[in-house]
Parts: sequence; structure tokens; C-alpha cells
Amino acid sequence: MKLLKETLEAIKPVDEEAKKKAKERMDNLTKPIGSLGILEEIAIKMAGITGKVHNKMEKRSTVVMCADNGVVEEGVSACPQWFTKILTENLTKGYTGVSVLSEFTNSDVTTVDIGVNTDIDNPKVLNKKVAYGTKNMAKGPSMTREEAIKAIEVGIEVADKLYSEGYDILGTGEMGIGNTTTSAAVLSVFSGLSPDISCGKGSGLTDEQYEEKKNTVKKAIEINKPDKNDPLDVISKVGGFDIAGMCGCFLSAAKNRKPIVIDGFISSAAALCAVRFNPLVKDYLFPSHLSKEPGAMYMMEEIDLKPMLNLEMRLGEGSGCPLAFQVIDSALYIMDNLATFEQSTLDRDKLIDIR
Amino acid sequence: MKLLKETLEAIKPVDEEAKKKAKERMDNLTKPIGSLGILEEIAIKMAGITGKVHNKMEKRSTVVMCADNGVVEEGVSACPQWFTKILTENLTKGYTGVSVLSEFTNSDVTTVDIGVNTDIDNPKVLNKKVAYGTKNMAKGPSMTREEAIKAIEVGIEVADKLYSEGYDILGTGEMGIGNTTTSAAVLSVFSGLSPDISCGKGSGLTDEQYEEKKNTVKKAIEINKPDKNDPLDVISKVGGFDIAGMCGCFLSAAKNRKPIVIDGFISSAAALCAVRFNPLVKDYLFPSHLSKEPGAMYMMEEIDLKPMLNLEMRLGEGSGCPLAFQVIDSALYIMDNLATFEQSTLDRDKLIDIR
Repeated sequence: MKLLKETLEAIKPVDEEAKKKAKERMDNLTKPIGSLGILEEIAIKMAGITGKVHNKMEKRSTVVMCADNGVVEEGVSACPQWFTKILTENLTKGYTGVSVLSEFTNSDVTTVDIGVNTDIDNPKVLNKKVAYGTKNMAKGPSMTREEAIKAIEVGIEVADKLYSEGYDILGTGEMGIGNTTTSAAVLSVFSGLSPDISCGKGSGLTDEQYEEKKNTVKKAIEINKPDKNDPLDVISKVGGFDIAGMCGCFLSAAKNRKPIVIDGFISSAAALCAVRFNPLVKDYLFPSHLSKEPGAMYMMEEIDLKPMLNLEMRLGEGSGCPLAFQVIDSALYIMDNLATFEQSTLDRDKLIDIR
Repeated sequence: MKLLKETLEAIKPVDEEAKKKAKERMDNLTKPIGSLGILEEIAIKMAGITGKVHNKMEKRSTVVMCADNGVVEEGVSACPQWFTKILTENLTKGYTGVSVLSEFTNSDVTTVDIGVNTDIDNPKVLNKKVAYGTKNMAKGPSMTREEAIKAIEVGIEVADKLYSEGYDILGTGEMGIGNTTTSAAVLSVFSGLSPDISCGKGSGLTDEQYEEKKNTVKKAIEINKPDKNDPLDVISKVGGFDIAGMCGCFLSAAKNRKPIVIDGFISSAAALCAVRFNPLVKDYLFPSHLSKEPGAMYMMEEIDLKPMLNLEMRLGEGSGCPLAFQVIDSALYIMDNLATFEQSTLDRDKLIDIR
């Protein structure tokens, strides 16, 4: 609890003075004010985080939290649970979408076993196992409160270490059969949305299995009665170790005044938990894409962030993060390299709207 | 008319066999089928265009068509008309958003004077002037039918030349005060949408000027009565030289079996014209971002394409194209580098849904 407590206490607002300076420069570049939309917002937000107008995100990694979910025994996934282990190992072999996209965008992947239900004997997987998977939330809490704290602290530790090693930005991803079910539960608890809306069908569920998934989430909420005002209670009762771990990464980012990217549905469930721990965290978060998972839109609304990309992806693994790194790079490049009105022959006051 | 006619006749469907092979490979990569969404679609679409499963888009340029619009005398823009010339010259100096983003993404900018209303003495601007700006469409046709043909053929020529020089992919952009007004008119004619919906407020228009803009578009359509079944009639009556030129670029791409990227609202008005010339053109088009211009959404619906990025940009110039090149690169990299099920230890039949 000590690390979580200290982290939460250390989170401060972003640097408004730096944001103001960044906005001033952005508005003084040769384009109508605001015409580069979210690219401008990204560059200004980044200044608030780092305290500097000019930023480069050279060293980056997507942290992939891998864990099993007891709720799969309710039949909420079309995949067998042992896929978690195989896919976790594939992450270290470059056999996954996030690995390939990370290679392409010159970024790393950090694979963490935070709760896979079998041992993983692989030196490229960080062994931070809290337990061999969670319990079945349809029958009781996913994990104890102590386990939830421990899993969040694993996320804090991993991110703290990466930032201290010089990583400029992190991404967040996950691997774990059954984790759209836990994420839907987290969304429903915080937002009050019915599981009929927060649950997606996935690609492999039959209509019948889909009904079962929704009923499972309803049952989990009914039985456990998570307190929406206590994110730790929500995570421990209907969350997963992956969600807890990513939540810790987001808290670490805010503490360390470093940027961090949200991937899709599950990653944003973790971001929502982090923002409920402390609303200031939001100013350190960059959403990447709008997942095809139907609840993703509501999740983004709940956190109040707008994703940059709309690629109908639903792979998870953190696969949206390397794509977001490219957009962020572009935004920062604009800030550094677009001419100012002084450099060009334009009169800013007349460039209200160039159309 | 000869070049336009020959171009239209030379447009053929994409290679369905290559698309099928590309889809087979994509479905055999270690991820649930379809889970990379639009990234998968991009790579498969590209195969249909080039006839090859594996593609690289190494040499790329965004073609920026620069032209003036007579309709600005109705007060539809908050900017003076002479901005077109200055901004056109700025394109060659690297002083614009598209220049900076192109530099960042290792792509070129091709600046074309297709109808700026003053002479441009700059060797870096291709002089393809059809006329010194269009006429005021609120009082009569923007241009003659012959001028429309000539402007489209300029676009075809420019793109033909670039593709023949080895460019793998082109982007399309524009520079011209008043061109959201012509684009809104084009959208209204083809879709039947009221100018109250197709016109945007821009950032600089007062409420009063906005009313004037909508009335101007209504008047232009009423006076000219463009025939929605004759895209040449639509372009000549309520279009602009920039729209015509970009339309020519899209037609050239389809003829040459090469990919081409749509930027924002104005560029997509040109794409809509090209698709109305021949619906097959659509299969050669890659939309980039959803412009903040309110009509952009309807334009995309009308062409039936889904943009990759959602950045609330409204700069024009082709500035979305270099950003789209990055996403396209990522999609093609996935196709080439993600492991197949044979390479990994996964059983494809069991990987229906990994969540």
C-alpha cells in the first residue's frame, strides 16, 4: 500500500505555464489557429507534462500486462484459457501485432506476467506474478483488496523503472483471455451503463454465448456490489490483474510527469480506474484509437478523451500504441518545425481562416 | 477531351485475384481474423491496386492544386483572395503544414498553379494555369465546360507524369481561398443535402457571413442548375480549378493502377466527382482523416469510405496525406512481417477470438 499511497500523493497538475507557452508558439505558426486540431492539442498537452515547449519522444515502450481471468469458466470467451500463456510467449518472439508495429515504429515491448495461470519460463517475460489468475467474479471478488494493491503496485514499479531508465513515453497493452468481460464490468460499474451496452460480442461468440457474457457481467456486479467511489474496490471485485497493472502504469506516468498512451477497450478500462483514483491523471494520458469493441466509445466518453485513430481494431496487446507514437511524433515535429509568422511573409492577423 | 476520354476508358477494376491472395495471407497471420480492422483492409486493398500481395510505398508526393475562386467576391471567406498566391509560394519554401509533415514522413510536395489569379514567378511551382481564377458561381458558371476538361486533364497529366517517374503513391491537396464554398456546392448537388448542412462556418466567419455563404451556395445551384448525373457539368458550374485538378489526379491513379490519398473536405469533393465519373475509381482511393469541416462526414458517406484518422484538422493543403502515408506504411508492414500460423506455435482454428 505504501507505494500506491506515495504515488497517489505525488501526482501533481501539469505545468500550465509551459502549456501556455506552447499554445502561444502553436498559435504563432503559419496556419489558421486551431486548424491542425488534435495535432495541436497533443503538442500542447505534451508541454504541460514535460514542462518544455519542444519535446521528442525517442525512447518508447509498450508495456503488455499478461494475466488470466477466472471468469472464463463462465464461457465468456471463444478461446481456451491456455492461449494467454502462448500469446504471452509470442510477444517475446515478435510474433504478435504489437511486436511488429513496435518494430516498425522504433519502439520496444515490455512483457509482464502479472498473473498468468501457469508458470512462464522465459527470461524475456518479467515475472511479477501476483497470483495464478484471478477468481471467477461471477461467484465472488476477482481478487482480494491486497492483491489489487499489489497488482497496481507492480504496474507502478514497472513503469517507474522504465521511466527512470530513460523511456520518454510508454504505451499500455494486455494479453488475457476473458478481459473484455472484466473491462465491460468496470465500465458498467463506473458509468452505470447496462452490461447489455458495455459488453461486446467479440468475433467468436455465438448469440447464445453473448447473452451468457452479459448475464455474467450482471451477475458479477450484483453479487459483488462494487463501490464506484472506490476504484480499488471496483478493480478487486470485477477487474483483472492486467487492468490493475495498467492502472498502476498510468498512475506512475502522472507521478513521474511522463506521457503514456492508452490502447483499446481493456487499456482504457484501466485508464478509467486511474482517473477515478485521481482526475489529474487524465492530463498525462494519450488515447490512441477507437477500438471496435462497442463499449470503447462509452469508455472514451467516461474518461473524456478523443482517440486519434479510427481503425476498427480489436486486437488488444497494446497494438494501437505504436501507431499513436507516430501521430504524436508528427504533432511534436509540427511544433518544432513549422515556420512562425515572423519567418514567413504572412500577416497573422489576416490569417483568420484560409478557406 | 482526348486525354480525359482515354483515361476514363482505361480505368479497369482492381485485381480481385491479388486481393483474394492478400486476404488469405492476412487471415493466416497470427491474430484473430479481422482484428486489425482497417489496417487489414488497407493492405488488401493495396494488393488489388498493384496486383501484388507485398507492397512498399517508398516514393510519394502530395500534389497541391492551387487556384482562386471567383465566388469570394460574395464574401464567403474571412481571408483576402491574395492569400492564395502567398500560401502557394509558402508551399515551396516549406512554410506550410503539409510541407513540414511531408518532410517528417519522407514524402514530397508537388505544387501546381492551376488557376491562381495572378502570375507566380517561382520555378518550384508547376505552371499549369487554366485561367486567372474562376468566375463567380453565384452569378453564372464557375468556368466553361472546356476549361473544366482542361483542368481535369492538367490533373491527369501531373499525376501521370509523377507515377511514370516512379512515385508509388500520391496525395491530393489544395490551396485556394473560397474553396470550402465550391466544395459544399459540389456536395449539395451530388447528395441533395441542403447547403445549410454542406456549408461549414470556418473559423473566421461571423454568423452573418455564414448565412451569406449558405445563401451563396443556394444561389449558385439555383442559377446554374448543375446536372448531378454529369460530373463535368457539376465541376464547371459550381466547382473550382483545384477540385477539377484533383479529380484528374484520382482518375489518373485509377488508370495507372496506383494508390492515391484523399485529404479533407475539398479533396474529397474532388474524389466524389471522380467516383461519379466512374465508380471503379473508389477502389484506388485511400481517405486520410475526417476533416472538422461539418460536411466532411457526409462527403465520406457519399463516397462510402471510412477515414483512418480523426484529428479534427481543417487546414487543407493535403496535410492529412503524409499522416495517412504513415498508417498505410504500418498496414503494409504488418502484411510483410507478422508471423504466419505456420511460423508460430498457434493453431489458427482455435484463435477465433483471443479475448
